[in-house]
Amino acid sequence: MPTLYGHPMSGNSYKVKLMLSLLGIDYEWVTVDLLKGEHRQPDFLALNPFGQVPVLTDGDVVLADAQGALVYLARQYDGSWLPTESVALADVVRWLSITTGEIRQGPESARLYHLFGLKTLNIDRATERATFILNQLEQHLSSHPWLIGDAPTVADIAAFPYIALAPDGQIDLSPYPHVLSWIERVKQLPGFVGMRGIV
Amino acid sequence: MPTLYGHPMSGNSYKVKLMLSLLGIDYEWVTVDLLKGEHRQPDFLALNPFGQVPVLTDGDVVLADAQGALVYLARQYDGSWLPTESVALADVVRWLSITTGEIRQGPESARLYHLFGLKTLNIDRATERATFILNQLEQHLSSHPWLIGDAPTVADIAAFPYIALAPDGQIDLSPYPHVLSWIERVKQLPGFVGMRGIV
Repeated sequence: MPTLYGHPMSGNSYKVKLMLSLLGIDYEWVTVDLLKGEHRQPDFLALNPFGQVPVLTDGDVVLADAQGALVYLARQYDGSWLPTESVALADVVRWLSITTGEIRQGPESARLYHLFGLKTLNIDRATERATFILNQLEQHLSSHPWLIGDAPTVADIAAFPYIALAPDGQIDLSPYPHVLSWIERVKQLPGFVGMRGIV
Repeated sequence: MPTLYGHPMSGNSYKVKLMLSLLGIDYEWVTVDLLKGEHRQPDFLALNPFGQVPVLTDGDVVLADAQGALVYLARQYDGSWLPTESVALADVVRWLSITTGEIRQGPESARLYHLFGLKTLNIDRATERATFILNQLEQHLSSHPWLIGDAPTVADIAAFPYIALAPDGQIDLSPYPHVLSWIERVKQLPGFVGMRGIV
């Protein structure tokens, strides 16, 4: 049975939990207490030298990255979530890059600043980045139901948490009706689970 | 014939150029003059609404992300650069996430600050991130010749430019001998081409 090491407030942990739930896979959840510094203890660093949650293990397999874990789960358990054709696969990778680039530097960073008090972040820059990526997403989703093609992929699951959690970073989603509709479509997927801030 | 729209000082443009060269693919290069704002003109925004280089086109295919372009080229022209097995593919995606996350926020941002004068960046944070990822890379490469497995993959090509260009961000690579050896291994690949700062 897979084991997911994560934190209940981490959107990156949540996206792997969501994927496991959408795929109907039983798994064990282990909370890594970040406030107590458990992510910097030798046991955890042996799983992920970066000292970051989440980590997904499955038998001997150890995956120390949320996006990597989503791709693994799709390829291993239900390929319909990850296209193999070259252009569609490249589009998935593009949206994973946007997730770890623009979304991380935008709404994810704004949430770290406002909700967790990481005041060394440049909040003006994070808010500007968040506005940029939300405008891009709004434009894209105005003519596409999902990020790629006619069905959800791992790209939607990767991008979803920190977009849906944008209000935690004091970013109002009401100017983005197509983004809000996409959030609702994700929530309607069979097996959907939420987290604090996404219900 | 593929067309690569890029800028000669852009490491993200360079990585796609490098991949095309390693694969022995003829292509057309189009310089997008960022100083003149050509990336914000309607013609270019029609290719990439994000207004970023590079963009790779191949027939009707348009790929507006360096990592996506690498994955497309590998899948389309030489699959040996992109594993299909679930764990190896997830590991590739992990290193692509690190490239667009830690490497972008670390050495790539330090280069933007020092070489291009983007002084709104928090240079202390960028330098700290650069040190973190270089230490992680050094540790990993001390027991692995390439980022994944025994042969180079798109992950190496994605990570390579902004690591090799770290000195542009006033980051000294001499404390990282295994990283320097890996840079040399990339440079020895048949078909290798350099750019300013990587020769």
